[in-house]
Amino acid sequence: MNAREESLASAAERAAAPTAPPQESELPHAPAHGGPVERRLLMRLHAHLGSPPLELALADGASSGAPAASVGRVTFASRATLLAILADAQMRFGDAYSDGTVTVEGDLVSVLEAVYRAGRSGQHSLLRRAVGKLRRPHINTLARSRDNIHHHYDIGNEFYTLWLGRTMAYTCAYYPTPQATLDEAQVAKMDHVSRKLRLSAGERVVEAGCGWGTLALHMAQRYGVRVRAFNISHEQIAYARERAAREGLAGRVEYIEDDYRNISGRYDAFVSVGMLEHVGLANYPTLGAVAHRCLGGRGRGLIHSIGRNHPQPLHPWIERRIFPGGYPPSLGEMAAGIFEPWDFSILDVENLRLHYAQTLRHWLALYEGAAERVRAMFDERFVRMWRLYLAGSVAGFSTGTMQLFQVVFAPGESNDVPWTRAHLYCD
Amino acid sequence: MNAREESLASAAERAAAPTAPPQESELPHAPAHGGPVERRLLMRLHAHLGSPPLELALADGASSGAPAASVGRVTFASRATLLAILADAQMRFGDAYSDGTVTVEGDLVSVLEAVYRAGRSGQHSLLRRAVGKLRRPHINTLARSRDNIHHHYDIGNEFYTLWLGRTMAYTCAYYPTPQATLDEAQVAKMDHVSRKLRLSAGERVVEAGCGWGTLALHMAQRYGVRVRAFNISHEQIAYARERAAREGLAGRVEYIEDDYRNISGRYDAFVSVGMLEHVGLANYPTLGAVAHRCLGGRGRGLIHSIGRNHPQPLHPWIERRIFPGGYPPSLGEMAAGIFEPWDFSILDVENLRLHYAQTLRHWLALYEGAAERVRAMFDERFVRMWRLYLAGSVAGFSTGTMQLFQVVFAPGESNDVPWTRAHLYCD
Repeated sequence: MNAREESLASAAERAAAPTAPPQESELPHAPAHGGPVERRLLMRLHAHLGSPPLELALADGASSGAPAASVGRVTFASRATLLAILADAQMRFGDAYSDGTVTVEGDLVSVLEAVYRAGRSGQHSLLRRAVGKLRRPHINTLARSRDNIHHHYDIGNEFYTLWLGRTMAYTCAYYPTPQATLDEAQVAKMDHVSRKLRLSAGERVVEAGCGWGTLALHMAQRYGVRVRAFNISHEQIAYARERAAREGLAGRVEYIEDDYRNISGRYDAFVSVGMLEHVGLANYPTLGAVAHRCLGGRGRGLIHSIGRNHPQPLHPWIERRIFPGGYPPSLGEMAAGIFEPWDFSILDVENLRLHYAQTLRHWLALYEGAAERVRAMFDERFVRMWRLYLAGSVAGFSTGTMQLFQVVFAPGESNDVPWTRAHLYCD
Repeated sequence: MNAREESLASAAERAAAPTAPPQESELPHAPAHGGPVERRLLMRLHAHLGSPPLELALADGASSGAPAASVGRVTFASRATLLAILADAQMRFGDAYSDGTVTVEGDLVSVLEAVYRAGRSGQHSLLRRAVGKLRRPHINTLARSRDNIHHHYDIGNEFYTLWLGRTMAYTCAYYPTPQATLDEAQVAKMDHVSRKLRLSAGERVVEAGCGWGTLALHMAQRYGVRVRAFNISHEQIAYARERAAREGLAGRVEYIEDDYRNISGRYDAFVSVGMLEHVGLANYPTLGAVAHRCLGGRGRGLIHSIGRNHPQPLHPWIERRIFPGGYPPSLGEMAAGIFEPWDFSILDVENLRLHYAQTLRHWLALYEGAAERVRAMFDERFVRMWRLYLAGSVAGFSTGTMQLFQVVFAPGESNDVPWTRAHLYCD
């Protein structure tokens, strides 16, 4: 699941570390509005962001000035809002945008992309690794995982039907060409995954984290396999079961409301699309153990997950408001945590980040078209919060701040591995 | 370059740890030949190897017995040879085979495969990671690297021409079908790599570790690029320069006798095929830094290397006799060491281990056909040593003890990445 967003202002936070942000109390005699102090604060924030092609402004008229080729303007309702963001950009920007005390003129995705690109420059260094080590461990116990998943996935199936398209697949699609529609690309993704797993009729597949059940149904319908699909979201499981019954596939697809750690049985293939982001690093060896005992020295596996170029904590606003307990790993973390302890061979890794940017553009367009209905279901704050999350996620994938890894693996002793990958592309 | 061999008897060594091997002095009154003590020693070694389908015997007639479906017999010339191997299997087996004090009846590759398969069982556990941490660091300084490379690659170009085929490519080939010939598969590998790098005419390519120069020539000739190719093997560079001159490509391919750490300049593509095995873990961030400064925020890279499913030291006999300073990494080690510190995006990983097993089978067949000439160049000991290395390497790749990773990467901020991988397979 889990389109996620990279820090809007993480560059600001990093750059700001040596210079303590100004406190309200330090500025008691500053002119109230539009004076040189406000302008200096705006320019300081602009510099902290890496000088993106954006104008930063206060509602009363103070401005950092519009740089050449500016793609938009970000306006802060008050000096208090601006100071709050300078003090704790990572949490406050998202909340202020949600509240409406930050507004954006210009295309929101382009504005966020400009911020991300500006924030990348000058970040290449071995220090990244040190920064990566600062992350907090994610201790996702069974109970904690249930709470985390409930937070995001149980807010109502109807909400998700507004913008996920017909397939109700809440993971990166695969666009054979950039012109494909969202629904076409979601179906193509399910075929791409199924081909990577080389499914054949009569085989048994286990799915860890099945969302609304789309992939399991597709595999059963198109590839003739039997699927046991696990998920701890009550709402999603209920939806999936109803769908399977409606399509006459309840005998071939079993949806189980349980944690991946409780999966039992032997299977020909293990698949997990968009669950790893919720697993937490500390549980990677456990996930590997589950796959290992499911396959028992034979068969094939595929894990599809949002990832990173290097270890880096999830943006705190996204973790607080959108994905509690979430963590997108680097490929090195996936390899060392899941596959290496169990002697799995990594056979194939494909990075589909541009496909996720495209998927998210399609979701965002559908979401904007349904904004009135979302507002009626929730409120304006919710509408803006999810808009920021979706737009920020487009920007994260389009600027290379986030990755999407599909990893095919097999038990180390198995020679049932494909000779080449041509079968994925040529019939 | 670097077809390598996994421990013939590493399973024995691991299993033997709790039980101290018997010393000559412990057995002063044992019957001299063919008695129950010899048989017990043979059976102990057989058990330590994980009970492979092999007969172990002494030249005087003592035997472990031939198990069902035995694929061959390993004969030790004397009790002293057998005891030496029980005491230090990792070093002594290879030396004894080279000396002729160990002989093998049956197909050597099949015998070694049987040993590898038997040694794998019961090895799945988190302890693998702990074992992996025990490795010694490889400190390959510039001078040390030169010595290491000289040891293997400067033993004479004529020797390698006997068994590498027409292309003189000493790395894993790519077989579009298992029926392809060695030369066809080496050309297909060079095209596969070139397509993964999406080379176009007029671009500049840098190659780190160029062997006898085959790939650089191929890229210049077929893809119209200009190549600067680095290698610290004097013999290989001399051979490559002569070849480029003969083929009229000296103006487009420059061979430089220098270390990868001294590469300078900007390029559209960075490629390294079969050098990483000689780099040593401690230098991975340096290799990443070289690629990073060569590409400067744009372009594409590819690293092709022998690897492992999990961190594990190189077999000590291979390191001593064949590849000093060598280390085949896990994918996690490659990711964390080379790519993550420099914000490279890993775009594509392909594991071609079965192709390396096939390449090595072809090399071994040519080698056996040229054994008389190798004997005339060196001696019988050398012939047997390299036979064991090549046959053991077939077995290492065919049983999944060793992997072959091709990793395509790009600077994190670059969107010049392929939309899909169909271009590799369909015209």
